[in-house]
Amino acid sequence: MQATMLSIPDLIKKKRDGNALSDDDIQFFLQAVVENNIQEAQTGAMLMAIFMKGMVATETMALTKAMKLSGEVLSWPEEWAGLVVDKHSTGGVGDKVSLVLAPALAACGLKVPMISGRGLSHTGGTLDKLESIPGFNVSQPFPKLRSILAEVGCVIVGQTVSLVPADRILYALRDATSTVESLPLITGSIISKKAAESLNSLVLDVKFGRSAICKDLASAKALGESLVTAGNNLGMNTRAVFTHMSNPIGRCIGNSVEVIESLETLKGKGPSDLMELVSTLGGVLLVMTGKVSSLSEGGRLITESVTGGAALAKFQAMMVAQGVSNENAQSLCSAQADYHRILRRADHQTELRTHTQGVVMEIDGLVLAEVLHQLGAGRTNAGEPINHSVGAELLVSLGESVNKGRPWLRIHFESPALTPDQTKEAWRPPIGVDYARDASPPEFVKNNFVPTTLKI
Amino acid sequence: MQATMLSIPDLIKKKRDGNALSDDDIQFFLQAVVENNIQEAQTGAMLMAIFMKGMVATETMALTKAMKLSGEVLSWPEEWAGLVVDKHSTGGVGDKVSLVLAPALAACGLKVPMISGRGLSHTGGTLDKLESIPGFNVSQPFPKLRSILAEVGCVIVGQTVSLVPADRILYALRDATSTVESLPLITGSIISKKAAESLNSLVLDVKFGRSAICKDLASAKALGESLVTAGNNLGMNTRAVFTHMSNPIGRCIGNSVEVIESLETLKGKGPSDLMELVSTLGGVLLVMTGKVSSLSEGGRLITESVTGGAALAKFQAMMVAQGVSNENAQSLCSAQADYHRILRRADHQTELRTHTQGVVMEIDGLVLAEVLHQLGAGRTNAGEPINHSVGAELLVSLGESVNKGRPWLRIHFESPALTPDQTKEAWRPPIGVDYARDASPPEFVKNNFVPTTLKI
Repeated sequence: MQATMLSIPDLIKKKRDGNALSDDDIQFFLQAVVENNIQEAQTGAMLMAIFMKGMVATETMALTKAMKLSGEVLSWPEEWAGLVVDKHSTGGVGDKVSLVLAPALAACGLKVPMISGRGLSHTGGTLDKLESIPGFNVSQPFPKLRSILAEVGCVIVGQTVSLVPADRILYALRDATSTVESLPLITGSIISKKAAESLNSLVLDVKFGRSAICKDLASAKALGESLVTAGNNLGMNTRAVFTHMSNPIGRCIGNSVEVIESLETLKGKGPSDLMELVSTLGGVLLVMTGKVSSLSEGGRLITESVTGGAALAKFQAMMVAQGVSNENAQSLCSAQADYHRILRRADHQTELRTHTQGVVMEIDGLVLAEVLHQLGAGRTNAGEPINHSVGAELLVSLGESVNKGRPWLRIHFESPALTPDQTKEAWRPPIGVDYARDASPPEFVKNNFVPTTLKI
Repeated sequence: MQATMLSIPDLIKKKRDGNALSDDDIQFFLQAVVENNIQEAQTGAMLMAIFMKGMVATETMALTKAMKLSGEVLSWPEEWAGLVVDKHSTGGVGDKVSLVLAPALAACGLKVPMISGRGLSHTGGTLDKLESIPGFNVSQPFPKLRSILAEVGCVIVGQTVSLVPADRILYALRDATSTVESLPLITGSIISKKAAESLNSLVLDVKFGRSAICKDLASAKALGESLVTAGNNLGMNTRAVFTHMSNPIGRCIGNSVEVIESLETLKGKGPSDLMELVSTLGGVLLVMTGKVSSLSEGGRLITESVTGGAALAKFQAMMVAQGVSNENAQSLCSAQADYHRILRRADHQTELRTHTQGVVMEIDGLVLAEVLHQLGAGRTNAGEPINHSVGAELLVSLGESVNKGRPWLRIHFESPALTPDQTKEAWRPPIGVDYARDASPPEFVKNNFVPTTLKI
């Protein structure tokens, strides 16, 4: 592969000492990882060395490309050229954007093969949310996936073992070795998977804030730049949108409760922050694919596909294509749906009440998610089952004045009952409600995203 | 073990971010390593984090102590209190000091339980050298080891599996993960093993120079200080001597040829640099144990134990106690010994000759050792057999004027013949002989050690 081949310890030493690895070095390392031709301790040491010393742009590119090529790369019919798009979010509490955005984009004529990782989140990921719908199958072989895309225009599935196997190995080890928050490693992981989907355009929803990987906008922009550069260099038209993540997106957090909120949104009755995020991200993709010439026009088109019912029809068709019965899909999408006839309802609901009067300053989504995690809505180890019925609904809005005793959160849970700690935890100031009277919410929480996009 | 127990990823993160680990943290990590209750990738990442961020003195101490306590700790009879000593060298080409020093110290009334690691060196380690003597057994159960110490006063054995198991695991991984040259990790490895021997006094021979871990005296002093501090804190009286390592020690390099040179030295006919090193290190230990009041007096006592034959008698008794036949031991220690009647001689000997006239400026021991390694004198992987007969004898001295065609190195080897590369390699300027006429060797190569000791 190269004239004078370096050994794995040599490669580790090179990165340890802050030198840039060559394309061949990186390819050799990744091949050893995929072929299990390396001691796990060496992979751990290399991840830590990369974490500490970083990578220059050419290294990140080589890493991302080698990861992409470690497995299968999808291909699409020629007539879809320019139309195949996807969105990736760095993760937010209550983030159900994919469930609304995918059918909205399909309604606008794009092809949206959303391949989601399951990950370990406090509440379930996109796949878990969809699996709360009886029959919904997120494992579709590639020919079926392609035929769903041809017929419906959108499909949401899990990652197959053949796609970017290098990421599966490295991702698990990064978690165990505390090397998750590394710009080149994050970039390699996200962009390699999207590049293996052979997308034409990709929009990234890069979150920042207390609960996000990036604590402030500056670090989010650094991540965005790294992702956009790598994406464009691998032949995908790539842009990033930066959105604040601290408050939950919408009012529901969990799995089936988020499906219900998504369906309500597709019926034109969703929360404004969710719709704003969907139309912004969708608008960017419509501009990138040349469907429209401005972001505002793109946003309007997305909004119209939702308000006009076209997106809902696509979601219904996608559910059926992915295994949900016609009857259930139709019932969930009807105007006056009785959701809990189809989506199991948790055994218990309880409402938490405010202790004093005040103004809602901030809602710490991460703390709520941690409580829901304890109640069974998320998993700690890969492969664990989760309880799709566990969830929470916010009953207050940011900036709202509330009196003492006002219900502010409805929790759906199974026995055993909530512990005092859990109700207290969810309520811990400054989480939930801030008691400072007459205070207005700071500007940034009024808008959940920063309406700038990054194009490199 | 502690109020709020951190997980392994938490501990890695703590060190990764440059924070000091607590005693409990370090104990928890090491316990996980020894009990195989940790992913190897996590150990690799932690080693790299320690390598990069270092450790403060309290961490190094906790690491060393926890390593020591990971296995058996030896104990000695009360009447030996204050007398149990050892020497540790950070490694040099042709370093046969232990073979002369151990019996010399025993002749001075000290107890010397030398427990050696086998390691991967270019030529064999101390154990390999001794194993070139037919019958010499470096594996002695602890009660036997104690009885040899009682009768003879010195014993040289290999490390048992029960002594510092944490080091065995970490040492192998450090090699694979390029984390060898780390002050706290080196300190932990060396001092934990010596502390588990329950020594009263320890002298360290810290090498510096091109071929040593420490490239200059300043870094050697940093290592020495770390070792001395850790040793003293674990209850051993510890001092360091700093010696230059670039030229080989003595004139022989290999295994059986080094045994022969050691025996010649014990008979009063050894090279002066070797005797200087032995009397310096031994003198320090005699001062530390209170046997003498000055280094010069200590050095003199060691020299006299050699010139008077007492050290040779101890070496002979040690050989017999460790399995060599009476007859062979006696024969090897006789005045006109025919060494090769007992120690196998390699099939071939060849002499390399100088190409031009000049002055011997420098002899790069490491390059010679690498050639001998290729010829079978050392091992690449643990457990491999080595050829005890392979070796080399220097036929010139530093500073000596030589004519063209003068034999300068005799190589002992088996078939197949030397390759042109090997003879060329050993001769590569500035290795071997420097052709610059009339040049004098620089000051530092005249004396092989810096006569300062470090006491903290």
